[in-house]
Amino acid sequence: MPNVTFPEHLQGGPTVGEIGEFEVIRVITEQASSALNGDDAAVLRHASPNSRAVATTDMLVEGRHFQLDWSTPEEIGQKAIVQNFADIEAMGARPIAALLALSAPTHTPVEFVRGLARGIGQRVEEYSAELVGGDITSGTSLVLSVTALGSLGGSLPELTLNRARPGQVVVAHGRIGYSAAGLALLQRFGRAGVPAELTPLVEAHCAPRLNPGRGMIARAAGATAMTDNSDGLIVDLSQLARKSGVRIDIDSDTIAPDDLLSAAGETLGRDPWEWILSGGEDHTLLSTTFGEPPSGFRAIGHVTKPRLDDPVTVDKKTPAYASGWQSF
Amino acid sequence: MPNVTFPEHLQGGPTVGEIGEFEVIRVITEQASSALNGDDAAVLRHASPNSRAVATTDMLVEGRHFQLDWSTPEEIGQKAIVQNFADIEAMGARPIAALLALSAPTHTPVEFVRGLARGIGQRVEEYSAELVGGDITSGTSLVLSVTALGSLGGSLPELTLNRARPGQVVVAHGRIGYSAAGLALLQRFGRAGVPAELTPLVEAHCAPRLNPGRGMIARAAGATAMTDNSDGLIVDLSQLARKSGVRIDIDSDTIAPDDLLSAAGETLGRDPWEWILSGGEDHTLLSTTFGEPPSGFRAIGHVTKPRLDDPVTVDKKTPAYASGWQSF
Repeated sequence: MPNVTFPEHLQGGPTVGEIGEFEVIRVITEQASSALNGDDAAVLRHASPNSRAVATTDMLVEGRHFQLDWSTPEEIGQKAIVQNFADIEAMGARPIAALLALSAPTHTPVEFVRGLARGIGQRVEEYSAELVGGDITSGTSLVLSVTALGSLGGSLPELTLNRARPGQVVVAHGRIGYSAAGLALLQRFGRAGVPAELTPLVEAHCAPRLNPGRGMIARAAGATAMTDNSDGLIVDLSQLARKSGVRIDIDSDTIAPDDLLSAAGETLGRDPWEWILSGGEDHTLLSTTFGEPPSGFRAIGHVTKPRLDDPVTVDKKTPAYASGWQSF
Repeated sequence: MPNVTFPEHLQGGPTVGEIGEFEVIRVITEQASSALNGDDAAVLRHASPNSRAVATTDMLVEGRHFQLDWSTPEEIGQKAIVQNFADIEAMGARPIAALLALSAPTHTPVEFVRGLARGIGQRVEEYSAELVGGDITSGTSLVLSVTALGSLGGSLPELTLNRARPGQVVVAHGRIGYSAAGLALLQRFGRAGVPAELTPLVEAHCAPRLNPGRGMIARAAGATAMTDNSDGLIVDLSQLARKSGVRIDIDSDTIAPDDLLSAAGETLGRDPWEWILSGGEDHTLLSTTFGEPPSGFRAIGHVTKPRLDDPVTVDKKTPAYASGWQSF
């Protein structure tokens, strides 16, 4: 009995084991083509001659980071790109390229790989980036590893975790808590059973979005520190606060549940603040800056001097939920 | 019953599930430390201001690319780095950084991860490169994905697959056939049972080596095309010949089995030419150049005009073995 079960509508056509490595590569590069692909390694063109390369990697394991009965192949590809590109944006850099390593069982439908590559192609295209290389291999489980490469131009420093300063405003671009609410809905109802009015939450989980260029905009506008809420709002801001040697206080009004999160909370009998404070994977950019929030960002709190206890507070109190994603 | 079985001598201590994500990361970065690691993404320092970034990725799956009863954790880490850095060298670039994504079952001994990271640290150190980032996650199988990044300085073009020209000499740096012979020995005898005099072949398989800088040396000396024998000598040279629109003829004397390969052939009752012509994973650099071979390289054949049949011949005849590695 195979370890990985593909939904029925993807089955019936050829499998990757039947068409073989070179055809699988052709299917992928058809959906996400790049003139830089096809040699031993890809040589990147930088837009500006003095730009520095920025690199990050994330691995997605079927059954752990996505489920084949919840997400379409396109959504899995989209999510893999966005969560990696968010880490490039969070340095204030521009994502320019991605590499895909894929381990898939031989019975994997070619249609799955085509959809996955289509989702990747769509998102890299949105960023004016390219899928420049990769590797495919057979394996018992379905594992994607995406590496994102970015370009950091100009003389301003990158946006690191350790450059938040007392007196700055904490700003955010993107929604907070949607992805965790979507996951909770999927766990209860499955994809097909989620009430129609709550589908935006499910979509935020299965295929998160992040507008290209927000990291660069914040950097140009004077932001100094940045991260994204991959693991959870409090967890990620705590890491930033600790590395910067500061305290962050969040104003609860600015992140309070909207109608959709409140409705999901009522439907599931759960407190939506848990999703907001401890849910990750929204890939919302979190930054610190003096003065006005950069375009597209909103103020959610303040940076103050460090205290001995909590690195991050909400309305100056210990947050009600503070855990986050655990890899093991 | 777990999918992945670790050798007994690695067991007994704590597992990654027991110590958790942050401790696992600490274990890895202790063995392969870098000041560039620890933020959302790594910003690379280039030695020269006008260098371009070069990127490649390879995935290694337990049971397929390595076996825990044949290779030590250190060797697995070493191999993962060398096979990726070989692809950077094959562009004529200098490897400067690696990223590691690792999916491991929760019962994985911490000692395994420590050894793996030590092997990675050893090899990146040899190249004056750094492990600048990564991702770890639990999963049912043991999967490593390494991305290598290089720096290509100066004004000479990179060494691509499509720039071999008739009249050039084909040159090689490194051994050919050793890795495949080592694999055949492991399949027959297991690691402990391999006759002592043949252990260099097994080591070539489990922990291939490639001297840093040979790709840059060849590029500086005027080489134009380059690859490495990842998949098999004939397969890899055929790809280079096809992309360049040329034919390559190898002189059999220059690649003939040495005493060790002959002894392994006799021991196993196999023809060592199969390992030489169709075995991959030596990560021997294969290049084309006008005039004398670059330092460290030896001539193994010639580039001629294309023919309609074989892209690569040996002594002007169809090679006896021409297959190579198949991913599915």
